[in-house]
Amino acid sequence: MAKIQSSIYGVFFAFSVILNLYCFINLHYVGGGVGGKGKQLSWTQKAAEEAEAVAAVSCSGHGRAYLDGFSVDGKPICECNTCFGGPDCSQFSPACVADADSGDPLFLEPFWMEHAASSALVVVGWHRMSYTFNDHSFISRNLENHIRKVHSIAKNAITDGRYILFGGGSTQLLSAAVYALSPENSSSPARVVASIPYFPLYETQTDYFNSVNFKFEGDASSWMNTTSSDSSINVIEFVTSPNNPDGLLKKPTIQGSTVKAIYDHAYYWPHFTPIPAPADGDLMIFTISKLTGHAGSRFGWAMVKHEGVYQRMMTYMSLSEMGVSRDTQLRALKLLKAVVQEGNGKEIFDFAYKTMRNRWEKLRQVISMSKRFSIEESPPQFCIFSQKVRGSTPAYAWVKCERKEDKDCTAVLRAANIIGREGSRFAAGDRHVRLSLLKSQDDFDQLIHRLSNLISEEDGTSKLCEEDHNNQHFVDYDKYYCCI
Amino acid sequence: MAKIQSSIYGVFFAFSVILNLYCFINLHYVGGGVGGKGKQLSWTQKAAEEAEAVAAVSCSGHGRAYLDGFSVDGKPICECNTCFGGPDCSQFSPACVADADSGDPLFLEPFWMEHAASSALVVVGWHRMSYTFNDHSFISRNLENHIRKVHSIAKNAITDGRYILFGGGSTQLLSAAVYALSPENSSSPARVVASIPYFPLYETQTDYFNSVNFKFEGDASSWMNTTSSDSSINVIEFVTSPNNPDGLLKKPTIQGSTVKAIYDHAYYWPHFTPIPAPADGDLMIFTISKLTGHAGSRFGWAMVKHEGVYQRMMTYMSLSEMGVSRDTQLRALKLLKAVVQEGNGKEIFDFAYKTMRNRWEKLRQVISMSKRFSIEESPPQFCIFSQKVRGSTPAYAWVKCERKEDKDCTAVLRAANIIGREGSRFAAGDRHVRLSLLKSQDDFDQLIHRLSNLISEEDGTSKLCEEDHNNQHFVDYDKYYCCI
Repeated sequence: MAKIQSSIYGVFFAFSVILNLYCFINLHYVGGGVGGKGKQLSWTQKAAEEAEAVAAVSCSGHGRAYLDGFSVDGKPICECNTCFGGPDCSQFSPACVADADSGDPLFLEPFWMEHAASSALVVVGWHRMSYTFNDHSFISRNLENHIRKVHSIAKNAITDGRYILFGGGSTQLLSAAVYALSPENSSSPARVVASIPYFPLYETQTDYFNSVNFKFEGDASSWMNTTSSDSSINVIEFVTSPNNPDGLLKKPTIQGSTVKAIYDHAYYWPHFTPIPAPADGDLMIFTISKLTGHAGSRFGWAMVKHEGVYQRMMTYMSLSEMGVSRDTQLRALKLLKAVVQEGNGKEIFDFAYKTMRNRWEKLRQVISMSKRFSIEESPPQFCIFSQKVRGSTPAYAWVKCERKEDKDCTAVLRAANIIGREGSRFAAGDRHVRLSLLKSQDDFDQLIHRLSNLISEEDGTSKLCEEDHNNQHFVDYDKYYCCI
Repeated sequence: MAKIQSSIYGVFFAFSVILNLYCFINLHYVGGGVGGKGKQLSWTQKAAEEAEAVAAVSCSGHGRAYLDGFSVDGKPICECNTCFGGPDCSQFSPACVADADSGDPLFLEPFWMEHAASSALVVVGWHRMSYTFNDHSFISRNLENHIRKVHSIAKNAITDGRYILFGGGSTQLLSAAVYALSPENSSSPARVVASIPYFPLYETQTDYFNSVNFKFEGDASSWMNTTSSDSSINVIEFVTSPNNPDGLLKKPTIQGSTVKAIYDHAYYWPHFTPIPAPADGDLMIFTISKLTGHAGSRFGWAMVKHEGVYQRMMTYMSLSEMGVSRDTQLRALKLLKAVVQEGNGKEIFDFAYKTMRNRWEKLRQVISMSKRFSIEESPPQFCIFSQKVRGSTPAYAWVKCERKEDKDCTAVLRAANIIGREGSRFAAGDRHVRLSLLKSQDDFDQLIHRLSNLISEEDGTSKLCEEDHNNQHFVDYDKYYCCI
């Protein structure tokens, strides 16, 4: 009897020892990262828990909660994508308009959700309180190094022997560049030009600052043709390549010893265009917005060949804002570190290109059924990044209304519940309209849906998808799109 | 025998069960925060560990390591305070110059080190990728609410019925305000003035942007006296209160229907001045730099009474940068949440005031021994924040050289190894010099040490502290200061 009792004790004891071992491993396993149990944390624990709790809020894949959003009963609320509503963003609004207006690069959001661990950042309360870094500059040299690395991976720019400075998105750097390239104390202001269709900010920004040093003159070719070739006039030309809105690779229109170019390379990444050669302009501007998709981070950089121009741009940055926020620089560093780390730096480009290619395939398929609309396309080229001939997959579709009576193409699309940006905003005619293909998958899906409906009406046949849900305010999203 | 064996098994088993219980409590105790064991983390673990590891690098209290700094052999390197060096910043350089030039508000760094948990921030990879918040603005409403709360605690400004907008530090907002208050398409530019001594940026910034819309005219009183009272001329006056450099509370110099004031209230916090009444100007500018000490974060806000002016300032922010980085706004929110939370919002003001008061006591003690130098002082006033009569503790000492021959006060101090900012930079004479009292404790200690030495030489007696360490490159810091 005692022997049996002893054996039972033995079994319990063995079980207990195994449990102890399990507990010990769990308590002291130092692995870190997703799934594993990391080191015991101290002062970061609460903030990390809070971030994970907010990220775990379910928004049905059609929205997300943010740490700086509002809460209801202590629970962070979902901020829903366009056309979705309800507490968890699950309710689709079928009467919703397809908004293809802004260049919000949310198509890259899923990439970062998939790489939560490598892109999460912890900022300490005393991070970089000083006005300057320890080399007395406004610029993180570590971040500068990572920018050079990313260009080297993308093969889209020559960085050797260039000065790099940072700005609040390309927006701020465009203005800094105009100031830096304009003559001071000249009797004649520099003439700022761009070739039509051009990005509207060039004009509005230059006009707004209304400096004695420069003046916006509109289309480069027209200005050249109407002006006597006075070689003493300083000219600054915005060269946007790939171009916003039409996605074409551009070169300067005007040449000469008093002509300077600002290369706006916001879209010169393998996502949007084949890279025929690394860019090599004297003054090139890039932005994180269209590289990683962080438009809200207001971070861009300029690569400048001549020290004098670089110093003048630095003066602009110093006087307008005392450099870019150190918090933003830290965030950009973390994101670029993640870019460099994932798939040897190629993963983000592969992800972004595939997404854009899929979107263009769908768009081309829809447009191919239309005689009413056409899209600007550029021929395939050899891409030194992907090492093959590739078609272009621009951030925007530059759509033209081909029917004689469709003089206002934006209005034609607006009548079909599609919001685009009118051609006149780009100094082109209103027969053109720009449609953004960069936004969330929901926005893109809604755009294709509305376009399909519109195009299916061209030959007078019934719509591809009957809108029989009009009386319902919200319906299930997947069912709604079953007909596309 | 079996009975004894059974008893031993029993004891081991009981011990094992207790051990299991301990493990279970340890594994599942959900406490969080410093000292306690928090919830098991997932994707934030690695970033949190990294931040704690960097923060734990010992820099002897004379420096700190940063997440975006460089590493040697995988270990983040210390960035040392002025006058300190070596791998752990423990080596003091006795020949070092006292740098009291910049307004780097590092005197608040210890506050944030003491409040690591409440100010730590975790940023997810997909945080606010859009250009706008979900209300289509560039402004976090949550942050706006916290700004109003902090003003309500400090009692330093009326926020009711005011529009709030954000900028890249007060620097960017000062420029936005000048643009917003200047007439467009006027034949005569607005005249921008300030009263001497004034903050140099007003002049350099206004001159740099060189707009057709405005023109810097220098000293307000002089301009008023030399100009015929043409009431059609638009005037913009910078009113800096407390003033930079002299710390005095200021009011507008010029009155009239075409005169508009920009109130620069960067220093209107209980740290630096008694608060006689909440500020109530039409256009007031504040910055986080001098409130929490985060000069590197480039975050400020304007409070504007009239909607039209607010909208015009928003246009400036939109065209110059598309609003302030969402990362910076998130960081500012976290810091202000910590401010509001700690000691009912009063702790930071108490900490900052005590630090400034101690520094002023030391400075006054040293200066009181001098006939050569004097300091601008303002009389004590009743402070509605502290509910008592208090002296002023400005960010800077506005020092005057009283000896006839000391025409260049900056040079006098420079010869004694003290770097100040020359009076001429503030459009005042060079008999004045500004000394910063905001910097790190090391900087302040070095300033007092150098000043004491200089003043002790006034009556021809020996120095207070013989510099007998000159042949040593580095000596122990505490020993070095034993003579102060």
